Amino acid sequence: MSFEITRNIRDGRLGNLKTKSGIIKTPLFMPIATRGVVKTILPEEIEKIGFEMVLGNTYHLWLKPGTKLIKKYFKGLHSFMNWNKPILTDSGGFQIFSLGERARINFGKSGVKLTEKGVYFTNHENGDKYFMTPEDSIQIQLDLDADIIMCLDECPSYPCDHERAKKSLELTIRWAKRCKDYFDKKTRVSRKKPLLFGIVQGSNYKDLRIKSAKDLVEIGFDGYAIGGVAVGEPREKLAEILKWTLPYLPKDKPRYLMGLGRPEEIVTGVLTGIDMFDCVIPTREGRHGRLFAWKKDPNKINLITDKDFYDSINFKKACYKDDLNKINEFCKCPLCQNFSRAYLRHLFSVGEPLATRLASLHNLNFYYKLMKVLRKTNE
Amino acid sequence: MSFEITRNIRDGRLGNLKTKSGIIKTPLFMPIATRGVVKTILPEEIEKIGFEMVLGNTYHLWLKPGTKLIKKYFKGLHSFMNWNKPILTDSGGFQIFSLGERARINFGKSGVKLTEKGVYFTNHENGDKYFMTPEDSIQIQLDLDADIIMCLDECPSYPCDHERAKKSLELTIRWAKRCKDYFDKKTRVSRKKPLLFGIVQGSNYKDLRIKSAKDLVEIGFDGYAIGGVAVGEPREKLAEILKWTLPYLPKDKPRYLMGLGRPEEIVTGVLTGIDMFDCVIPTREGRHGRLFAWKKDPNKINLITDKDFYDSINFKKACYKDDLNKINEFCKCPLCQNFSRAYLRHLFSVGEPLATRLASLHNLNFYYKLMKVLRKTNE
Repeated sequence: MSFEITRNIRDGRLGNLKTKSGIIKTPLFMPIATRGVVKTILPEEIEKIGFEMVLGNTYHLWLKPGTKLIKKYFKGLHSFMNWNKPILTDSGGFQIFSLGERARINFGKSGVKLTEKGVYFTNHENGDKYFMTPEDSIQIQLDLDADIIMCLDECPSYPCDHERAKKSLELTIRWAKRCKDYFDKKTRVSRKKPLLFGIVQGSNYKDLRIKSAKDLVEIGFDGYAIGGVAVGEPREKLAEILKWTLPYLPKDKPRYLMGLGRPEEIVTGVLTGIDMFDCVIPTREGRHGRLFAWKKDPNKINLITDKDFYDSINFKKACYKDDLNKINEFCKCPLCQNFSRAYLRHLFSVGEPLATRLASLHNLNFYYKLMKVLRKTNE
Repeated sequence: MSFEITRNIRDGRLGNLKTKSGIIKTPLFMPIATRGVVKTILPEEIEKIGFEMVLGNTYHLWLKPGTKLIKKYFKGLHSFMNWNKPILTDSGGFQIFSLGERARINFGKSGVKLTEKGVYFTNHENGDKYFMTPEDSIQIQLDLDADIIMCLDECPSYPCDHERAKKSLELTIRWAKRCKDYFDKKTRVSRKKPLLFGIVQGSNYKDLRIKSAKDLVEIGFDGYAIGGVAVGEPREKLAEILKWTLPYLPKDKPRYLMGLGRPEEIVTGVLTGIDMFDCVIPTREGRHGRLFAWKKDPNKINLITDKDFYDSINFKKACYKDDLNKINEFCKCPLCQNFSRAYLRHLFSVGEPLATRLASLHNLNFYYKLMKVLRKTNE
C-alpha cells in the first residue's frame, strides 16, 4: 500500500504517502519548481522549511533544457536540481492548453491542435511546433524520474459548454487508459516504481465530474487528482466540485487538488478529504510584495472554527516605509527573524531581487506552517 | 593606532585595521552593498564567505530610503540591513558626477552644477533636484553610522585636461579640509569614533597626484584612498598612478584603491602597497553569467610569480548545456558544491533569479579566497 491513513479530521484525513524517494506526511503542500527550481530559492532552503515534495513541469522541462539531457546526464530531475526528496511532475496538459493562446498571440499560429492520437502545440517562447501523445508525457515523466506521474489530460478553460466538456472528458479518459497501459508496460520490471495519478475533469457539471471519477477508478490509479479547477470558474464552485467528485474516489488512495489555492481553500480542501496541494500563490504573491501574516499564534488556531486567521499585506505600499515591526511576529522565517517591514519595503522599492527571495521564503514558511497546523488539528 | 602592519610582501603589507565595529584583516576586499544590500545575497551569506566589511553608498541611501529614516528608526545602516560588522560608505561624489550625465539624458536638465559651497545634482531616477555640501556628505555618513567615512570629492572622468584636473583637484582639497573640520567637530565627544579617509585625485598627471597626496597628508586623515581610477583611463595607467602616489602617503595609514578591480589588478595593488579594495566586478559579472575559476588549487598558487591563475567563463554559452562538471573544482561555494555547469546554464537560459544569486555568491567566494591567498603569500 502506498497510502496509509492514520487519523481523520471531519471528512478529511491525515496519512503517510509512500513514494520511491521517501515517505511523506499528508495533507501536504508542494512548492512549485516548474523549471527545476523554486524561483529564487535553494533546495536546501525548501527542505529546511520542512517541505517533502516539490512539483516539476513536463511541458517546461521538455522544452528547456530537454528531458533527454536530464535523463542522459543526470539520471533524472533529482540530481539535476539537487533535490533528493520526492518530486511530482505535472503532465504538461494544463500548460499546453493555457499557453496555447499565448503562442497564438505571439506567433499568429494556432497554439494547439487536438487529435485522438495526441496534441500539436506551439512553444509560446519561440514558435517551434511540438507534438505530444499521452505515451510521450508518461515517458518524459519517467525520464525525469518523477516519484508521482500525472496522466496527460485535456484541460478546457471556464466557461465550457456541456457538450464540449463531455467530449473533452471522454478523450481525457481514453488518454488516461493509454497512459496507464504505457506506464504499466514501462515499469513492469522497475525496482523503484513511481506512482501514477489520474486526473478528474468535467468542468462544472455534476454528471461529468461523477462520470470522470468513475471511469478513472475503473482504470485504476495510485491516486486521483481533481483538475480543471482554478481555470477561471467562480471560487464558490470549488466546494461543489469536491462534493460531487470525492464520494466516487476510493478512500484509501491519495487525492490531489491541482493548482489551488488560497489558505482558506486549502483548509476547505483538507477538511473535505484532499491530501495534496500545489499552488503558485505563495511564491507569486511574494514576488509581487504580498505577504501572508498570521493574525494569532498559529499553534493556537483551530482552523475548523476560526476562519479569520490571516492577513495578506502588500509591502510595496509607502505606509510601511518606516515600519520597524517584523513582517509577522508569529513567523520564524529568515525575513521575520532578521529584518523589518521598512527594510523589506526598501528592497521592493529599489527593485532588489533579495526582496522577492525573502518574500517567497516567508510565504512558503506560512504555507508549510498551515499544513503543519492542519495535521495537528483535532475536532 | 587604528592600523597595524604585521608583515610585508614586496612593497605591500599585511595588517589589521581597527574600526568601531571590529578589527579587520588587510588586505581586504569589500562586497558592494550600494543600497544597503549585496544584490541577491543575505548578510549572513556574506559573513559566511568570510568578508568583514561591506561598502554602502551615500548617494543612493540618501535618495532611497533616506538617511533620516535609517538614523531615526535604526540608529544606522548596520541594524537596517542586519550587518553588524564594519561598513565603509562612499561619499557620493563619484555617483553624483557619473550619474549626472544620465540625469541630463533622462530629464534634459544639467545633471550637475558645481559651486565652491557644494554640488547641485539631479536624481537620475526622477529628476528631483538636490544640493550636497562636503559637510552634508559627512553628516549623512555619520547618520548611517559608517565605520569608515569618505570625504566628498569631485571625480572628473577620463580624459581630463591638466588645467581642468588641477582646478578640480584644488576644490577637492578645499572640500577635504572642510570634511575634516566638520568630522572633528561632530565626533569630538564620540565614544566610538569612525575613521575618516581622504581621496587622492589628479587624473593621470604625476604632478597633480603628488600634490593631491601631499595636501591631504598635511590635513591628516585616518586613511587615504586613490580615487579617479577606473573612470575610463587605459588600464596600464593604474600602475603609474600608484607608483607616483603611494610614496607620498604615510606608510602607517591604510590605503584604499577605489572601485578596482579585476583579480590581476588586485594582486598588483596589494604588491604595490594597497590595503583595501572594492569593486562591482564579482557581483556584476556574476549577474551576467561570467564566473571566475581557479586554474589550479589556490592554496598552491604563488600570486607573485604566477600571473595566469584564473579563467573567466561565460556560462550563458550553449556549450555548457550538457556539461556535468562543477563550475570550478577548486571552489567550495554552494554553487560548486551542489550544482553542475549544465544546471547553472539552464538557470540562466530560463532567466531564473537563482542563477544570478548563485553566480554572485561564487564570484564573491573567489574574491575572498584571492584576498586570503594574498594574505598568506610569502616572498
